[in-house]
Amino acid sequence: MARILRVNTRNKKVTNEELTGDYAGLGGRGLTSRVVRKEVSPTCHPLSSQNKLVVASGLLTGTNAANTGRLSVGGKSPLTGTIKESNAGGTFSQKLAKLDIMGIILEDKPEPNAHFQTLFINKDGAKFLEIPEIAGLGTYDASARLFEQFGSKVGIMVIGPAGENTRLASSIQFTDPKGNPSRAAGRGGLGALMGSKKIKAIVIDSEGAKAPEVADKEAFKAAAKRWAEILVNHPVTGQGLPSFGTSILINIINEAGTLPTKNFRDGRFDKAADISGEKMVEFINQRKGVAKEGCHAGCVIQCSQKYCDEKGEYLTSGFEYETVWAFGSNLLISNMDHIAMLDRLCDDLGLDTIETGTTVAMAMEAGIIPWGDGQAAIDLLKKIYDPKDYLGAIIGNGTSFTAEAFGVDRVPVVKKQSLPAYDPRAAKGVGVTYATTPMGADHTAGYAICQNILKVGGDIDPLGKEGNIEVSKNLQIATAAVDATGFCLFVAFAVLDTDDALDTIARLISARFGINFTADDIGKTGIEILKDEYSFNRDAGFTLAHDQLPDFFINEELPPHKVKWDFTAEEMQKAKVEI
Amino acid sequence: MARILRVNTRNKKVTNEELTGDYAGLGGRGLTSRVVRKEVSPTCHPLSSQNKLVVASGLLTGTNAANTGRLSVGGKSPLTGTIKESNAGGTFSQKLAKLDIMGIILEDKPEPNAHFQTLFINKDGAKFLEIPEIAGLGTYDASARLFEQFGSKVGIMVIGPAGENTRLASSIQFTDPKGNPSRAAGRGGLGALMGSKKIKAIVIDSEGAKAPEVADKEAFKAAAKRWAEILVNHPVTGQGLPSFGTSILINIINEAGTLPTKNFRDGRFDKAADISGEKMVEFINQRKGVAKEGCHAGCVIQCSQKYCDEKGEYLTSGFEYETVWAFGSNLLISNMDHIAMLDRLCDDLGLDTIETGTTVAMAMEAGIIPWGDGQAAIDLLKKIYDPKDYLGAIIGNGTSFTAEAFGVDRVPVVKKQSLPAYDPRAAKGVGVTYATTPMGADHTAGYAICQNILKVGGDIDPLGKEGNIEVSKNLQIATAAVDATGFCLFVAFAVLDTDDALDTIARLISARFGINFTADDIGKTGIEILKDEYSFNRDAGFTLAHDQLPDFFINEELPPHKVKWDFTAEEMQKAKVEI
Repeated sequence: MARILRVNTRNKKVTNEELTGDYAGLGGRGLTSRVVRKEVSPTCHPLSSQNKLVVASGLLTGTNAANTGRLSVGGKSPLTGTIKESNAGGTFSQKLAKLDIMGIILEDKPEPNAHFQTLFINKDGAKFLEIPEIAGLGTYDASARLFEQFGSKVGIMVIGPAGENTRLASSIQFTDPKGNPSRAAGRGGLGALMGSKKIKAIVIDSEGAKAPEVADKEAFKAAAKRWAEILVNHPVTGQGLPSFGTSILINIINEAGTLPTKNFRDGRFDKAADISGEKMVEFINQRKGVAKEGCHAGCVIQCSQKYCDEKGEYLTSGFEYETVWAFGSNLLISNMDHIAMLDRLCDDLGLDTIETGTTVAMAMEAGIIPWGDGQAAIDLLKKIYDPKDYLGAIIGNGTSFTAEAFGVDRVPVVKKQSLPAYDPRAAKGVGVTYATTPMGADHTAGYAICQNILKVGGDIDPLGKEGNIEVSKNLQIATAAVDATGFCLFVAFAVLDTDDALDTIARLISARFGINFTADDIGKTGIEILKDEYSFNRDAGFTLAHDQLPDFFINEELPPHKVKWDFTAEEMQKAKVEI
Repeated sequence: MARILRVNTRNKKVTNEELTGDYAGLGGRGLTSRVVRKEVSPTCHPLSSQNKLVVASGLLTGTNAANTGRLSVGGKSPLTGTIKESNAGGTFSQKLAKLDIMGIILEDKPEPNAHFQTLFINKDGAKFLEIPEIAGLGTYDASARLFEQFGSKVGIMVIGPAGENTRLASSIQFTDPKGNPSRAAGRGGLGALMGSKKIKAIVIDSEGAKAPEVADKEAFKAAAKRWAEILVNHPVTGQGLPSFGTSILINIINEAGTLPTKNFRDGRFDKAADISGEKMVEFINQRKGVAKEGCHAGCVIQCSQKYCDEKGEYLTSGFEYETVWAFGSNLLISNMDHIAMLDRLCDDLGLDTIETGTTVAMAMEAGIIPWGDGQAAIDLLKKIYDPKDYLGAIIGNGTSFTAEAFGVDRVPVVKKQSLPAYDPRAAKGVGVTYATTPMGADHTAGYAICQNILKVGGDIDPLGKEGNIEVSKNLQIATAAVDATGFCLFVAFAVLDTDDALDTIARLISARFGINFTADDIGKTGIEILKDEYSFNRDAGFTLAHDQLPDFFINEELPPHKVKWDFTAEEMQKAKVEI
């Protein structure tokens, strides 16, 4: 039976628990949000001993069904103060599943001057190791050192200098199949929570473990086959994402007039072509990079890549649309190599690229560095390596914090988390998601870009109000369920357009556990997760006053469509599952 | 008829409005909180054009009744996000009253690169002046320069470098009768709000103005006579405060075991005697200072002083108990001259001394400077003069911000405002006030030290729970009313112990305006003010989750009494006026 590893970071005691009672049958975001709801005081200080960091693989993770290798990381967010689930790729989750561990709970907190520890987990158990050489290192060097010590087949979850110094924008990075720490549980500052527990890395070695067996192998095989077909046959998951990565969106979103430019002043960037997915692939092909890669075994979408510098040397991977936007049009930077270096720096420092891009925009608003200056942005981020650099300390703490530090009042955040790569005024469905998701502004929580712009799963006017609350609500429920399964969220493109997709997912879950799980149960799962999350936030002191975009979206027209944000917080309550 | 001066800081238009409708009959905190409630969006960014800074003299200010020269300053707090009233002494308020101006509203906001302006107000009207020489200056140099230009009889309201750079801990300073900018609207970062409006100073010249007349002169004279007797006859307002200033409390509060020491780790400081009021007076007498001074004309309490350095040169005044605590036992600093210099620096930089003291504690928790090192604390604050010093930018932003910058989780704040000089575990009445006042942690909002420790106006066990919610509620109502009158809060000591005191206050107000104001109306005034404030906060997103002290007060015993904080947020709702 799948178990939870409960790890006390103060006394270094590790216990195994069965997934029973309130936790029975849960995985991924379902498990992380339930543990946080049940075990963490909503009003606690996020960096105190009372907060917990919860890691969980999905219900289908570890099987050979396509695209099921994702991981959920949860806790009370140091950035937002809300509950948080941050979802990551990489090889860690499948190794966890192979060891039959559904979740890890890091709890309590060592004394202030305690040294950083590495937690090593294999078939024989878990142990704390002190590896002084990796303290303070970037995630690239730290993971290289850990592969050296533990072999190239381990999976690594690691924080960088940002997380070690509890910077609020810090991520947790995960190694990909090539061994690069390019995958991130980026949003919500969970790297700071891991840093507060004084855990630099968790290394997982599944060698010799006997993976748990699927309950009904034949039924699973048939469903998995159909599932792969669904993904491969859809134009987005079968062609668009594998050809150009997520940066295929740059030209599409720019054309739609909703590519936030210069800290959300315009919906179009005149140099969008220079930072597009098409341009990225052109560079990759010129420089002997790799245009298609998966972030975990069994991925058929292959949206990742290997991006090299002009000399043909590896620079970064997992180089996403949102990152290109955050450091590109958002900052008026059009040099792709500068943007790639900024992505690399974020991965190495252990920083969320979206939050960090919008943070650099605050520094530009304040005149700390000039708009459009990629090299200055690179130099700025490098300051975060030095724990004693105070400008680095400010920048590492994210958008809202940096704006406060410099008195900037144009701050694109909801619940202190920065808005991602779609201007909500010209993509109102995703705007409703930004305002109402329990996570703080987050496009992945209910990606209405599908219906607003891509016309996948429906066609809803991005500029009007009609239908946008409903679509956001439905997507938020569906996404919560997807995040419980271990599926990559990109499967949603195909699911939304394929009649038997939900049924196929239900068949996979039924066959995996020998239960009778229906398509209806998927929606119920999503609703239960959101109930845990909304009730945590309510008890943490969040009200409808926090469910709104900043005033400037309401007061300023966005070119070229000349649209404002026009939903009230009261109206948007209908996008939330009732608790 | 008393009027409001409405000042648009963008287009520099000034209009006079009568106090009618919702504002009729209001003064002081009654007026500031009503204007903020009616005119400021509770969810706006505090530094945006939508926030307003409101200044109001009290209902009795400008009369010759004793101790009626106080001023209220209000707005949405940049520090807390709540509504805020911050109360100050100095000569400004009486000059405002002499011009028959009950309030000033600064609204809108100039362009980001606009130069700082000085607003000059006299009997002929109000005008904007650009005085480049005072931009960036400390409040001592800036006010000296303004006295030079406008004559020594003007009253000055001025921000320092902290406010100019919108630091969240910044105060607004007011000149005292000696011309020193030693009086402060300290709490809640209102200096940052003034800075965001690009107003460096307001200079008020009441020369030649005909003060408004009291409606019933005979009745007023009789009541004012009795009022002065009440103050002079009470041991606290007649003897204690005039002899030793507010620092008389150091030994008393230390003895009571509720003097917060080393960031609230102990209730006693072994070097309390070195920083006591008695010691302060000893130094003052040795160095030819002045032990007794009023902050405005007509003060009979005279709690201020002139504190000189070893060479006999003026160092600071308005040197309060809370300041001595904040930089003294709170930081383990026992050198009175260092503490006096820290007070001087705060006045000059335009920083709240309480917030700044607890901020320095965060820097000490983080190891930025050592505990107990007064010179290091002085050097740290001096960094705030330089707008480009990033450590200064952090420290200037207050306790919660600095703690976040450095990952400190022992953060003594409620609603992001720091706890003042009484440990709530061993003075539970004031703890209830910290948790529930609409202002964020604030002792002046309901000073139950009277009943808990001083045994003025009652005797309630400071360590137990009984009676402490009720006393806090009653004091919060009474204080709101006092803050509407222009009375110094210290009158409360005498009022609580004198049977006809409330009646005397009612007679003063009745005679001033020719109305029939009763002692019962005083309570009603307080309740109306709190209703405005609580409803603003509710709409800004504050819930009972915000009405609680930080966890460490609940989890850690305070020596020497070994007491914890044991009120729940639910229990404490009874201390709040219902809205």
